[in-house]
Amino acid sequence: MAGKVFFGVSISLDGFIAPEAVPVEDLFGPEKKEDDPKVRRWMAQWMELHQAAFPQRFFRENLKLGKGGEEGRDNDIARATHERIGASVMGKRMFDAGELSWPEDAPFHTPVFVVTHEKRDPWERPGGTTFHFVNDGIEAALDRAREAAGERDVRIAGGGETILEYMNAGLIDEFTITLSPVLFGTGVRLFEGVNADHIALEPVHTDPTPRVTHLTYTVHKR
Amino acid sequence: MAGKVFFGVSISLDGFIAPEAVPVEDLFGPEKKEDDPKVRRWMAQWMELHQAAFPQRFFRENLKLGKGGEEGRDNDIARATHERIGASVMGKRMFDAGELSWPEDAPFHTPVFVVTHEKRDPWERPGGTTFHFVNDGIEAALDRAREAAGERDVRIAGGGETILEYMNAGLIDEFTITLSPVLFGTGVRLFEGVNADHIALEPVHTDPTPRVTHLTYTVHKR
Repeated sequence: MAGKVFFGVSISLDGFIAPEAVPVEDLFGPEKKEDDPKVRRWMAQWMELHQAAFPQRFFRENLKLGKGGEEGRDNDIARATHERIGASVMGKRMFDAGELSWPEDAPFHTPVFVVTHEKRDPWERPGGTTFHFVNDGIEAALDRAREAAGERDVRIAGGGETILEYMNAGLIDEFTITLSPVLFGTGVRLFEGVNADHIALEPVHTDPTPRVTHLTYTVHKR
Repeated sequence: MAGKVFFGVSISLDGFIAPEAVPVEDLFGPEKKEDDPKVRRWMAQWMELHQAAFPQRFFRENLKLGKGGEEGRDNDIARATHERIGASVMGKRMFDAGELSWPEDAPFHTPVFVVTHEKRDPWERPGGTTFHFVNDGIEAALDRAREAAGERDVRIAGGGETILEYMNAGLIDEFTITLSPVLFGTGVRLFEGVNADHIALEPVHTDPTPRVTHLTYTVHKR
């Protein structure tokens, strides 16, 4: 049996999955502008949005942020989500930010298919992550990810535009939103431009933890 | 002890509390345009957004929609919310829509303070609802509502703009969002223009039911 195609994102209570865009070089590049107020605001909002993730043992280990950490429900969810993934798909902008900010041992440990116009040879990282650069669109990238994932699931990792393209193409089976108790006011909206008239959602389960609420829905055509 | 000031709204998963605006006369007026595609779309989205409310016994009784109905958790929440309210505050646009659509025995059964520039004598309805028209701003309306509510709570009933004014003025203690598994794509956003930098939220409890998820937060300055 083939796996599912899903995404999972943290979202502010006003619907944003990222603060207002700042150039990735300013955030993570070798000459990052840590004192720029826009960069500081971006970082503060990003940390707040992911407030449930950063203290978790699994997240800290996987991103090489340090040993130890919390081991409650949020940690179990992070680990279980990671373990169901056989391959990931991401957009070029997410890859560009990650290339500057992930540890050398990138946090996927599976094949990752990057949807891009850039031609580039596969990039193998220590720890099992290999980035493949796919130049013929989102469906081709998903086909390759499905094949690589086998019976495990494919995660559309991000960013928002890439998730929306898959959503509007009817290629998402399920998603989980981690609703964070924070208001951004401005930023990158998850569902901006969603093809609302042709998508029906069904709630699958709600998992409240002390910091956030994890909400899972299946996606259907209508 | 004085009561709390709260609001409670249903919200689509993409952050809308109402479909794209349509003139209230077209929706609810004596010559309503039931065959207009925009009106039909508005009605369909509104019903979907409030899918957990319409089948509930309390909601049906209170809005004179008919006898009977569901009596589970969503019904208990609707009744408990109604019972905690000693007075409501609303904006003029919500009142205008309600004046055309509420039953004669309006569904509040307490004093309601309408923030408006219109001068008008109090309007008493059968069943205990009296509408008072307040011409000197949101704080004056809230003062009068607090006094009328005594130890019970004041609900900022809506619409979105009025809720946002109270939120940004730091006058909301607590709110409940009923997150509905529906995407609108367009419409009236709850938190558009929220003063995000000065508002901190704390999750109080999450109450998932089969149809929706009720999320309650307290509001703090920062």
